[in-house]
Amino acid sequence: MAELDRFFIPQSVALIGASRTPGKIGYVMLESLKSSFKGLIYPINPQATEIAGLTVYTNVNDVKEPIDLAIIAVPAGNVKIVLEDCIKKKIQAAIVISAGFGEIGNKEGEMELQKLAKGRIRLLGPNCLGTYAKGLDMLFLPKDRMKRPPEGAISFITQSGAVGSAMLDDIAFEGVGISKFVSYGNAIDINELELLEYFAKDLGTRAIAAYIETLHDGNRFIEVCKKIVKTKPIVTLKAGKTAKGGEAVLSHTGALAGLTEVYSAAFRQAGVIEAKTTEELFDFSKALATQPALRSNKIAIITNGGGFGILTADAAVLAGMELPDLDKPTTKALQAHMPSYAIAKNPVDLTGDANAERYAGALTAIGKDPAIAGIIVIALVQTPQLEESVVDVIRDAKMYGKPIVAVMAGSDYTYKLVRRLEGFGVPVYPTPERAAKAMSVLWQYGLILKQFAPPPPPEKKAAKLIAKKAKKAAKKVAKKAKKRR
Amino acid sequence: MAELDRFFIPQSVALIGASRTPGKIGYVMLESLKSSFKGLIYPINPQATEIAGLTVYTNVNDVKEPIDLAIIAVPAGNVKIVLEDCIKKKIQAAIVISAGFGEIGNKEGEMELQKLAKGRIRLLGPNCLGTYAKGLDMLFLPKDRMKRPPEGAISFITQSGAVGSAMLDDIAFEGVGISKFVSYGNAIDINELELLEYFAKDLGTRAIAAYIETLHDGNRFIEVCKKIVKTKPIVTLKAGKTAKGGEAVLSHTGALAGLTEVYSAAFRQAGVIEAKTTEELFDFSKALATQPALRSNKIAIITNGGGFGILTADAAVLAGMELPDLDKPTTKALQAHMPSYAIAKNPVDLTGDANAERYAGALTAIGKDPAIAGIIVIALVQTPQLEESVVDVIRDAKMYGKPIVAVMAGSDYTYKLVRRLEGFGVPVYPTPERAAKAMSVLWQYGLILKQFAPPPPPEKKAAKLIAKKAKKAAKKVAKKAKKRR
Repeated sequence: MAELDRFFIPQSVALIGASRTPGKIGYVMLESLKSSFKGLIYPINPQATEIAGLTVYTNVNDVKEPIDLAIIAVPAGNVKIVLEDCIKKKIQAAIVISAGFGEIGNKEGEMELQKLAKGRIRLLGPNCLGTYAKGLDMLFLPKDRMKRPPEGAISFITQSGAVGSAMLDDIAFEGVGISKFVSYGNAIDINELELLEYFAKDLGTRAIAAYIETLHDGNRFIEVCKKIVKTKPIVTLKAGKTAKGGEAVLSHTGALAGLTEVYSAAFRQAGVIEAKTTEELFDFSKALATQPALRSNKIAIITNGGGFGILTADAAVLAGMELPDLDKPTTKALQAHMPSYAIAKNPVDLTGDANAERYAGALTAIGKDPAIAGIIVIALVQTPQLEESVVDVIRDAKMYGKPIVAVMAGSDYTYKLVRRLEGFGVPVYPTPERAAKAMSVLWQYGLILKQFAPPPPPEKKAAKLIAKKAKKAAKKVAKKAKKRR
Repeated sequence: MAELDRFFIPQSVALIGASRTPGKIGYVMLESLKSSFKGLIYPINPQATEIAGLTVYTNVNDVKEPIDLAIIAVPAGNVKIVLEDCIKKKIQAAIVISAGFGEIGNKEGEMELQKLAKGRIRLLGPNCLGTYAKGLDMLFLPKDRMKRPPEGAISFITQSGAVGSAMLDDIAFEGVGISKFVSYGNAIDINELELLEYFAKDLGTRAIAAYIETLHDGNRFIEVCKKIVKTKPIVTLKAGKTAKGGEAVLSHTGALAGLTEVYSAAFRQAGVIEAKTTEELFDFSKALATQPALRSNKIAIITNGGGFGILTADAAVLAGMELPDLDKPTTKALQAHMPSYAIAKNPVDLTGDANAERYAGALTAIGKDPAIAGIIVIALVQTPQLEESVVDVIRDAKMYGKPIVAVMAGSDYTYKLVRRLEGFGVPVYPTPERAAKAMSVLWQYGLILKQFAPPPPPEKKAAKLIAKKAKKAAKKVAKKAKKRR
């Protein structure tokens, strides 16, 4: 069991500060835990004996069984004493939800906790929301106000709790899946570096999204990321790039641009993909978590709306993509499946009366074209001719092994289909421009892979093979020698 | 009655090509009309006598009463003969929905229509969706697939029907209101210029959004817009900036950048605000349609999430805004309404446990500060402490006469409140960056007003006043002289 596993897959948790009062943080957290966590829950509250059917304890040391994880949600002034209790109980992982430390100038209280925890207990927080994963929901945001995202392949770390919860709620609406979520707050023990390293090894994580306000060690960040991006893409959104926070922001714009560039340069050096906006953080992550990297920048566009085709072409070109002319066999294959007024060029315009079958024909023709590395497929589903099965048709096109991203703009009906298609592992965007950018990021990650994890040169490969064979031969000889003895 | 009024507020319409078959375009259009239009509807179809309870006519000339508007949805080959019927019937306005003309190379058919209509009937289309306004819905997109937006102050013209319907559906979800919508297609008679001029005079329109593929006369476009923007902002999204359409796009990037710049320069010269993405088209329009222009670039930010405050500050500064330090009286007024751990600086951080009352205190303090020209207010409503009434509190802050834009990120619960707040005329954005950009566009429009509609210099004002007085005096003298006679 990795050290940080206790924060995501504990067997038992204590909620210190569990409350009897509906609406209170300590009550909502208990509700969230009860509805998600399958292990043992020990609510701790000296003033209660039972909450929501669970036996309440006065102190963690009154619990006889071992406790994997302590979640601490008591007033700042009581955190130290509670943490001492946890150490006494030999709990090895604690999340301090409580605010009122470094962020309001109480550095002393923070350092006390840090000193106390060191070598005795691993600590997430303070001033955070804690963790969220399948089977572990401790969020104090009620479910009727904040949707929980489905299980998926993105892990999301965030320094700010409010950014974290608002964005989880936002992406849950679209249907983007989350593997693990961590709000790490003031990071007096566990910080973004350790979390990145943890997710690098986590089997459920295929892409890492990070909202970062402070880099705790710039050089190590670069070092750590360089290794991770060989196998998993990292997307970061850095806040406070325009001089720390807000106030200092306006003082002088000179230093400001400098700062922005410093961070961008560091991210480039680290092989990290930089999101410039909150929107881009998940636009990019969901493409990277579900699609392979793009092996060239040559893509094709398929649309049932001419205007959206043009806008997507514009945006793709501006994002560094190429829209090659289609060769004769592909053009013929396209024409075989569409009426004469449809356009068998790139972008392929199936026109407004296209049905799912016409999409299937086009996706097959383009999917089989070796000159095309990726596909942006636009499906405006407002038209009565287009069946819902277009979603299955797009899913089936994954068999060609090429990155696919989709554009679907609309409201209720559209979003029903968006969620289905995203459930199939195809990222969907509400505008041409966002889809084109996401596609270009798959190309950017392709370049990062080439730079940071280049395939071994052919000579080396041959040398390796020879070495392997030699080893095998040596083993055989040794075995024979053994037998002879 | 202005000539184009017939396209938006007709008294009677004929739907030529009304269909008996559910799901068919001519059937959905009739359904849309029936559920919206209060005037007389004459379905025309030689093969039917009644559809959905309405008497069907073989030909418009069988209708005895006058017809204001003909909507033509028959196969391309029959459009000409139908149009001749309309002219014979002395109908003065026709919308040709039918496709199959210039867009598929049938320039001849298009020119025939053009020649026929000239001086006899005003024509919208062909190859379009027609118009949409309160009391006139002719869209052939079924309502269960495409939401209709509520009534509002944006008029939206679009060359592409599919772009139009997808975007209407999209913004309807948020709750953005539309005054009038026109899909003008191939524009063989009425084009974007005449529509812009029409909306300039339309009382229901406070901002114009335009999706444009072709400018029919670049110089006149600049001329026309220069006049309109003195009273109403125009936002355009130009498609095909990277060489026409998609194919030509990739050939050479040199010409490409040139094209983009040519359009951008023309828009700047015309005082038109350029949207670079579909998202920006309505992000900008909804701010401009509901908020006054910004009189300076000095704004304040109010948030209950520190991270979102920082991100908004970053984005605002990068968009050219200033976040001035707050003066003593404002700081004191803020502090009077918030706990000690909240931050009475700009951005104002009310912190995660803020309730509506705390927002009210902050909005009042900032609203009264003469140094602050506009307010970005962030309300992350996932927290259980924040009451729904925060929406009313934000609406009430409109009394200070300053532009307000809001940020609310989330899903179902959040969007319920977003729609309410947008109904009150406050534009809401799902991300800090989009809100900050929208605010900067209010400043951009302030600059456009200064450039294109400068207030008369003081001397001129005085001279005018003197001239007015002199005129009045002269009149008096003339009157007296008359009496004497």
